[in-house]
Order: sequence, then structure tokens, then C-alpha cells
Amino acid sequence: MSARVLIVDDLFPNVKLLETKLALEYFDTLAAMNGPDAIAICERGLCDLVLLDVMMPGMDGFEVCRHIKNNPVTAHIPVVMVTALDQPADRLRGLDAGADDFLTKPVDDTALFTRVRSLVRLKAVTDELRQRALASREYGIGDPLAVAAAETGLDARILLVEDRPGAAERMAAALRQHHAVTVEPDPAAALAAAGAEAFDLILVSLDLAGTDGLRLCSQLRSLDRTRAVPLIMLAEEGDRARVMRGLEFGVHDFLMRPVDRTELLARARTQVRRKRYSDVLRGAMQAGLQMAVTDGLTGLHNRRYLDSHLGALFAEDGRRRGVAALILDIDRFKGINDTFGHEAGDEVLRGFAERVRQHTRPADIVARYGGEEIVVVLPEAGLAEAQGIAERIRERVEAAPFPVQRATRSVPVTVSIGVAVRRPEDAGPGDMLRRADLALYRAKRAGRNRVEAQAA
Amino acid sequence: MSARVLIVDDLFPNVKLLETKLALEYFDTLAAMNGPDAIAICERGLCDLVLLDVMMPGMDGFEVCRHIKNNPVTAHIPVVMVTALDQPADRLRGLDAGADDFLTKPVDDTALFTRVRSLVRLKAVTDELRQRALASREYGIGDPLAVAAAETGLDARILLVEDRPGAAERMAAALRQHHAVTVEPDPAAALAAAGAEAFDLILVSLDLAGTDGLRLCSQLRSLDRTRAVPLIMLAEEGDRARVMRGLEFGVHDFLMRPVDRTELLARARTQVRRKRYSDVLRGAMQAGLQMAVTDGLTGLHNRRYLDSHLGALFAEDGRRRGVAALILDIDRFKGINDTFGHEAGDEVLRGFAERVRQHTRPADIVARYGGEEIVVVLPEAGLAEAQGIAERIRERVEAAPFPVQRATRSVPVTVSIGVAVRRPEDAGPGDMLRRADLALYRAKRAGRNRVEAQAA
Repeated sequence: MSARVLIVDDLFPNVKLLETKLALEYFDTLAAMNGPDAIAICERGLCDLVLLDVMMPGMDGFEVCRHIKNNPVTAHIPVVMVTALDQPADRLRGLDAGADDFLTKPVDDTALFTRVRSLVRLKAVTDELRQRALASREYGIGDPLAVAAAETGLDARILLVEDRPGAAERMAAALRQHHAVTVEPDPAAALAAAGAEAFDLILVSLDLAGTDGLRLCSQLRSLDRTRAVPLIMLAEEGDRARVMRGLEFGVHDFLMRPVDRTELLARARTQVRRKRYSDVLRGAMQAGLQMAVTDGLTGLHNRRYLDSHLGALFAEDGRRRGVAALILDIDRFKGINDTFGHEAGDEVLRGFAERVRQHTRPADIVARYGGEEIVVVLPEAGLAEAQGIAERIRERVEAAPFPVQRATRSVPVTVSIGVAVRRPEDAGPGDMLRRADLALYRAKRAGRNRVEAQAA
Repeated sequence: MSARVLIVDDLFPNVKLLETKLALEYFDTLAAMNGPDAIAICERGLCDLVLLDVMMPGMDGFEVCRHIKNNPVTAHIPVVMVTALDQPADRLRGLDAGADDFLTKPVDDTALFTRVRSLVRLKAVTDELRQRALASREYGIGDPLAVAAAETGLDARILLVEDRPGAAERMAAALRQHHAVTVEPDPAAALAAAGAEAFDLILVSLDLAGTDGLRLCSQLRSLDRTRAVPLIMLAEEGDRARVMRGLEFGVHDFLMRPVDRTELLARARTQVRRKRYSDVLRGAMQAGLQMAVTDGLTGLHNRRYLDSHLGALFAEDGRRRGVAALILDIDRFKGINDTFGHEAGDEVLRGFAERVRQHTRPADIVARYGGEEIVVVLPEAGLAEAQGIAERIRERVEAAPFPVQRATRSVPVTVSIGVAVRRPEDAGPGDMLRRADLALYRAKRAGRNRVEAQAA
């Protein structure tokens, strides 16, 4: 995947060198000579990845990284820190600041390109989610980006695939400070476990006895159920080529043995955060779509959902036993509003919705139809059964008054219900609903608190 | 990106050979020995890409391909046809059947792996969109997958970047049978045009005089505004290495010179279809989210939107000049429903919403608050201004009766309006709305068809 790479370095020759290397590999580049400029470029959405020098006058690389990673607008942009000093302490400071990886000067070309490509590819998938999340923020459906960026990356469920008992114990002990860890020495069992349980991260040794750990990584990346789980390879110095191969096909990160405890914790945390970032965005999208078919006050389905599903039911449904509809209307609801206030009216509506839901099955459609009206659709029900259900609901509504004003008062409520079933000559669901509406009208005229069915 | 590749071939040795090659590159494989098995595996969502033999007894590869590409459930799965015969006619039949590419036996390994990786990466991004679209289908918000799969890939806007006049003319003439084509010989001008106009496809010659066409491809893949536009490279036989490079960084397809007219049309169409498939899914997501904040009957914003944005307005808004709210309630709306029927009532509500919208500004929030009530929020408005706007709306509603029952009848309508502005002591928007509600109540008590403001 091509991408725009932002090179941040206060020394012009360093910028030039990286620019030339990246251009030869067909990357687009931008440059910033200091931290504030780099942050501004990220905030304007002009780059896909940042190569960030650590030692800069004024704001140093760690501070720039923290800025980028703590701002919901830029937190998704991968940051690779480039440092002259191969000091573990520096690596850890960078990882703590949220950096995705480290490269040491002089920069090894293969490592640079492989890492940049791998991070950019992972970002491409997140970007698609992010675009949708931006839309839901614009519509005022929460701010999933802020929630996602605030994720801590702790308390994760981690699967460690390692068959050397000593190494497994050491790593598990370190990780257990913040996470729940399952150790599994056998790759086949690990694959099964990963498919069955929801892990937030999987660490895989590349040097399992008698098998290629990279093959397990490839399988985990290929299966639908495990594809979204981040992977970290555990490798020996001699495994470089396989590590690069793994990054190429989508493994997220690696750790070189002997594994530094603090680096293990930092990289695990970065991957867990990244996964949860995507999970939050996916969840927000799902919630946004669900809102589109949900009534905000009662939590019932809304009319849009009813129309769509009832239409589908009528279209597909020649052979079924039938469809019945109830229209329920609270009696003298305006009086409740006028006497007890709008908020009490809302409480009654919520309580009413809840009682209706308790006396219907999961397969029934219960939707708020407008104001104080609820429609219930009963698939495969006949007229007698539908009348029975309607009568039971009517009784349950009348049986106990509805608490309002934080349960300091209660309001007696009754409901009138019209019942109709589908007829062969119906052109669409509208015909059935109209008959139920007429029956409801008769129930009201006959004194309310009644069930009436369509005329025979 | 690793992936599950389905190998379809009736000859076991052929299956074995491809399996071995792919396994060495860390791909997961599945096999099917005939067309119906292959289709079943695709329908169950078990593979990411299909390598499909053409010559099979029973259902041949073309027919299998057509099945996969015409079914909304499987249309997004890339299909690469593998054929023993390097016959242009076969290639075209395959492309016509919707195949994404062709490989000739004996299969060249580099070409195989590059192509499979490139198609799998592109699919990873679409998959994320598809998952969201599946959700919206489940919620009954249309069926974007069916719409997307039905896309023809014709009538596209195509940019052809080619500086050889003869070749440009020939290709443009062929493409113009079905598409609108812009020819641009200069890469800088092409980049500018691609950023400014919405093209569905860009074809780029790799052999532009004095410049590397692949660099233009990389820039187009890097810029936000052009990233989603599919690219096809036009290459000479000697360009193989650059073609593979291009596929690696995300170029979608290529054509070898001399360009076959029919193959040009087929590949262009495949790319246009693929782009529009994603566009439709994105649009559906957007529409789904918009529905979540829109009232289905009137098209106004709903209460969820009002609550969210009014909350934000109150939270951010210490320095602004003020916020005003109107609550509008149609007078004796129940009487309209009872006299003219529910459908006429809905028509009145829609007409009422439309008049309110006509007398407010785009920055105002107009939301259906429930039943026959609309709330208008006026940012930066004072009490006098808000009363003026309320009075104007009241007049416009009274001025002309509302047509109902397909304009065969009309209903005189009046509205009562309560007005309030934010006060410094307000804890939240609820306080302001309550004052507006009290004012509305006074307007009703004082005889309706009136505007009343909060008490001083």
C-alpha cells in the first residue's frame, strides 16, 4: 500500500536521506523540522505514518509522540521512532509514549520498508472504520473516536503460545501483572483455543519444537474468528527473515529474545489498545445502525423497523400459517400528561412498553407506532391466538398502576386494543393494519379498556 | 495479508501443486474438485479468494465464476482463473464472467503470489465495510449488498493518462462506447485533475516521456481524495518488475501493450464495479447513521439529535450571545386525525414541518419532539428575535390551509408556540425547554394560535 510518510527530524541531511530511500520505494513523503509542525500536519490529516526522531531541540520525540497518541483526532496514526542511541531505556520511553515501533540509526532498509508497509496496511482497514465513526460523531451519535482513543490497553485476555516452560513462565508472570494469561504449548490446541475464546492478543513463539510458529500466525490471520486479534511473534536473532515475512502477511509486531520484561508489557499494551480502538469503532457503528430502528424513549423498535420487516413478512410469506397484528393505544393518555406532566407521561409509556414486551415472544415484532400507540406483529398467529395475547396484555396493564415521579406516585392505566389477521386478498400489510385500526376505534367507542377484533 | 485461498480444479495433482506453493508462502488453502462444491464453500464464507480452473467436467470455470459474481453474498470474493490455454478468447470469456484476473499454466510463482496478495489486501478493506452493511440489512435498513452487487460498471468517468497520441486515441475511442473519458498526457496535470474531479477509474501509462508513471500511481494511492479510485497500469512486456511493484503497493490491475480493446473494456468494467460496490456500501452506512437522527415521517431531525446537539451547545457555549428555543404544537391536532383520518394527519404534519423549515436558517435545529410538537433551537438568538421568528411561523401556518388526501381537500391549521431563551442560571437545556413548555401551555390556555414567551 502506498502512503504519505511524515519524516520528522531537525537535521536536514537526515530528512533528505529518508526521503530518498522512501521515494525509491514509491512512498510519498512530507517533512517537518520540529515537533509542533509535525503535530500540525498530523492534525490536518495529511499523513499516514510518522517517522519520528527522538533528539530534537524544544519538544523532543517522546513528547511529540505522546501528543499524537493522546489526541483522538490523531491517535490512529502509526508512529515509528528513529533513534541514534540503541538504548533499551529509550525504546521503553518511546513505547510508553505510545510509539508503534523503533528503528535504530543507521536505519536498515528492509526493516524500515517492511515495518512501514505493515503499519500502513493495518491502518488502511482502521481508516475505513474511522471514516464511518467520524460520520456518527457529526450526527451527534456519541463520540466513538474519543472513547476509542482513551482505551488503556490493560486487563486484556492474552494467549501465549510457547513450549519452553522457563520462558513461558517468565513472560506469563510479567503479563499477569495487568492481564489474564493462558499459556498453550501446542499450536493445534492454541488454534482451537483462539477460535473458541475471545482473546485480545496472541503471542506466538516462532521456535516451537517440530513446527513453524509462523504457520500458526498465518492460520490465525486467515480465520474469520481470529483475524482481528493482534499477533506478536517471539523470535531469535536468527529469525529475522521469518519475522519480515510475518510482518508482510499481517502479523502486527515482534519481540526479540531474550525478551525484555518492560518491552513485552509495552508492546502488548500497544496492540491491545489498537485492537480495542477498532472494536470501539465497530461497536459504535453497530449501535448507530441499531438506533436507526429503535425508538429512543421506549427502546422498542420504531415504525421504520416495523414497516421494513412487516413488508418482508408479507412478501415472503405465502406458505406460512398467518400473520396477526395488534394496535394498542393507551386510554386517555392526554389526561395523564395534563395531570402529571410530560415526564410522568414518558414514564408511563416506558412502563407500558415493558409490560407489552413481557407478554410477547422474541419472534414477535413490538414497535412504537407513534405517540401512545404500540403495534405488535405476531408471525404465524391466528385470530383467536392473537385475541388471547391481546386480552392478556390488556389485563396486565390494568392489573397494577404505573409508578411515576420516581415512584412517589402511581397512575392507573388502561389500554384499548384492535386485532386483525392477514387475509388472502390483502395487497400489503397496510390493509391488515387498517382493519386493526378500525377494531381499535370500535374498542374506544365501546368504552375503552377492551379488545376488539376485525369484523368477520 | 494472509488469507484462505480456495483452489478449484478437477485434477488432484494440480490442486496439490498449488497447495504446496501457497503453503510455502504461508497462505491457508482449501480445495474443491468441482464447481458446485466451490460455490458452496464461497457461500459459507470460508475463503478469501478463488483460484479457479477453467476446464472442468460438468460446470466449467466460467459458469462457476458467474455464479460467484452474481450472488450478492459472494460477489466480493476475488476470482482468479487459471487456464492451460493462453487464448485471448478464454481470457475475455473469464473477464466477462466477472473474473478479477487470469493466470496461465504453468503458473508463474511471482505473478501468482503478487496477484493473490494484492487482491486479498484490497478485499480486507472491503470486508470491513461489508460487515457493517450486513448489520444494516439485518436491521431492515435496506439491502445494500444486493444493490452493490447489481452494479453494472458502465457509464463511468475515466481519466486516461497517456502521452502517445495514437494509443490514447485508440483506447479513448474504445472506452467512450460506455464511459466518459478525459485524456491527459501530463502527469502533474493528471494528479491535479484526479484531485479535483470524481473519477471512477484512472488508467496510467508506465512509459510517460521523461517520468515514471508508477510514481504517479503511488501519489494517487497516497492522496486522500484519490485513494479510493481504482488504477490500471498500461505496461510493456519489459515492465514486469514495475508492474509487480505497483500491485504490491496497491495498484488494482494492469494491461499489457498492445492493449486488446475487449480486454480493456472488460478490466475497466471490473474495476468500476468494484469501486461502486464499496461506494454503495459506504453510502448505505452513511444513510443508516443519518436515519438514526432523522424522524421518518417529517424528515426533520429527531429528539435524539436535538438532545445531543442542544447538550453540546449548552456545554461549549459560555461566550456565545445566547440560545433560544421554540416549542410549536399544532392546535387541536386530535380533531384533525378524527375528522380526516390518520393519513391526513400525517400529511398535515409533513406540511407543517416543511413550513417551519422554510422560516428557519440552516444553522437552526428543527426537530420533531414527539406527536404534533416541533422544537426549534436558534443559536445566538435573543428573546425578541426568537419571538419574531415564532410569530412569522405562526402567521405562515395560519395563512393557507394544508392540502390532504392527494390535495382533494384542505385543512385549516393553527399553531401555538412557546418561546424561551437560555438563562445564566440554567443547569442544562432542560431548564430552557421547560420554560418554553410553560409558555406554550399559556398560549394554549389563552385561546391557541398564539405565541407566548417565558415570564421575565
